[in-house]
Amino acid sequence: MLLLSGLAAACARGQAARPASVDPLPSWNEGANKSAILAFVARITDRDGKDFVPVAERIATFDNDGTLWPEQPVIQGLFVKARVEALTARDPSLAGRQPFKALLEGDERYLAEAGEPAIMALVSATSAGMTDEQYRAEVRRFFRTARHPTLAAPLTDLAYRPMVELMALLRGNGFKVFISSGGGVDFIRVISQQMYGVPPDQVIGTALVKEPRLLGRQTVLLRKPEIATINDKGGKPVNIDLHVGQRPLFAAGNVRSGGDIAMLSYSQVPSRPSLQLMINHDDLAREFVYGEKDGASLAAARANGWKVISMRDDWRVVFGPR
Amino acid sequence: MLLLSGLAAACARGQAARPASVDPLPSWNEGANKSAILAFVARITDRDGKDFVPVAERIATFDNDGTLWPEQPVIQGLFVKARVEALTARDPSLAGRQPFKALLEGDERYLAEAGEPAIMALVSATSAGMTDEQYRAEVRRFFRTARHPTLAAPLTDLAYRPMVELMALLRGNGFKVFISSGGGVDFIRVISQQMYGVPPDQVIGTALVKEPRLLGRQTVLLRKPEIATINDKGGKPVNIDLHVGQRPLFAAGNVRSGGDIAMLSYSQVPSRPSLQLMINHDDLAREFVYGEKDGASLAAARANGWKVISMRDDWRVVFGPR
Repeated sequence: MLLLSGLAAACARGQAARPASVDPLPSWNEGANKSAILAFVARITDRDGKDFVPVAERIATFDNDGTLWPEQPVIQGLFVKARVEALTARDPSLAGRQPFKALLEGDERYLAEAGEPAIMALVSATSAGMTDEQYRAEVRRFFRTARHPTLAAPLTDLAYRPMVELMALLRGNGFKVFISSGGGVDFIRVISQQMYGVPPDQVIGTALVKEPRLLGRQTVLLRKPEIATINDKGGKPVNIDLHVGQRPLFAAGNVRSGGDIAMLSYSQVPSRPSLQLMINHDDLAREFVYGEKDGASLAAARANGWKVISMRDDWRVVFGPR
Repeated sequence: MLLLSGLAAACARGQAARPASVDPLPSWNEGANKSAILAFVARITDRDGKDFVPVAERIATFDNDGTLWPEQPVIQGLFVKARVEALTARDPSLAGRQPFKALLEGDERYLAEAGEPAIMALVSATSAGMTDEQYRAEVRRFFRTARHPTLAAPLTDLAYRPMVELMALLRGNGFKVFISSGGGVDFIRVISQQMYGVPPDQVIGTALVKEPRLLGRQTVLLRKPEIATINDKGGKPVNIDLHVGQRPLFAAGNVRSGGDIAMLSYSQVPSRPSLQLMINHDDLAREFVYGEKDGASLAAARANGWKVISMRDDWRVVFGPR
């Protein structure tokens, strides 16, 4: 009966039955950050402790680009480029018009200066007018063969293994794990279950306006060339609230653009235990090294006691076996 | 070991261990509609059948007002009225200004003619400028004592028992159950778990614009006097897509304004089994009788083969024990 009640208890709490001696984070090196994560999970799940948090309130949110997979280059950009190449094959005049020209020629300086409006013009041009079903089919097709330009691997093999383990650890301890990304929500949802174990309804992202249309007797949604919400910076807490309806008590983002500062801040409430991770890309040998011009993310981490994760020092491996 | 493996299997499939002979819908009368619901669930969960649907795709969406609880009067309207009364106590001039005057005097004709803009003005005036935490505290306070004006019961006792059983049946068979309501998402989320077993992140509704603000070192969200989305009619499929990322294959709404036609249509795809319920309020003895001027909801149900649920004939009881 011990096995039976143990199984029932694990089942009730949504935990995998597992001997206590197995390391739930084998891809993390021992150290202060790994210890802080394990201690936090132990603390908020201890029914007899003062920091116990009921399962219904265990919400975790993760950024995607640079937090769960690489962003050099941004992977959705590779998809958009592949789509523009396909469109240009049908309409060669595109190759002479901005921002398509810059994308096709790899003119990153133009794109960086043109900024978000250019990126959004590209996203709109390559997916507006499609139904959801058509768009998803294109994204699926892309991921079947797409490889990273420098990491020599299929894109779908590039989830950061330490973060996949961390999401599994949180889920195993009753957390509902959400992705909150500046990337397109429909793009990420195609691979979120397969790569991260996160179902489509737990993905929050940048979204286009859609229009319901009756095709024959069936209602379809058409993608419009207009942004409904940009899920970055202050947009992250707003959209987390819209989708989740409560504050996360765990949030993870990364250093690059300051895009995750508001989300990490939102997850931090004085009256309740919480944990925030800010990933620093400092691992030239296994991934990339890059920072932030104004240093805002690291400054916010210092000011608020968020854990800065060094990919080089904290992660034993970055990617899974390939 | 039979018990153990049975428990483990039930646990893995997310089903309650239950003898097959127990009726999962005891508040429903026997008849074509109850049979259709049970047959649908059996069909899409039969691993060996041609209509099997994987757990990850089992999405159900329910309207709230008139589908899960009464809407005569709309319950959020009672909350808004209570808030306006509190505001008027502090600023008596409100009582002479529309639409506050009409609300306080019960002038339903004015409100009906002024329509949605007046309703939204009231919602904004009574909740804008508050943080999420402040608003939720007000809603919680309201529900602690509020009673229905004619049904002689606390509002929180007024979930339709047949629908609560139906949601439990679907969850027990691997469905993720969402609410998609024209009502305010933040209003419903306060009581959705308690009344329906639906967690806050599985509630979709009409939403205000919110603004992130740093108060001291803490990020709060302020409610603005501006509607971000109205989750009614064509807005329902759009917001279901935004929140869920896939089409439901089960949807339930009710006859009153045609507000659920687009949602039910969206859940219906020729290539996949699906079930749609349209609840008809025809039970004067136990609830209310009302219809729709243009008859659009019943016409759509006839044209598309949706099940029309008669509260009078299909439901053995309407409310739980009070």
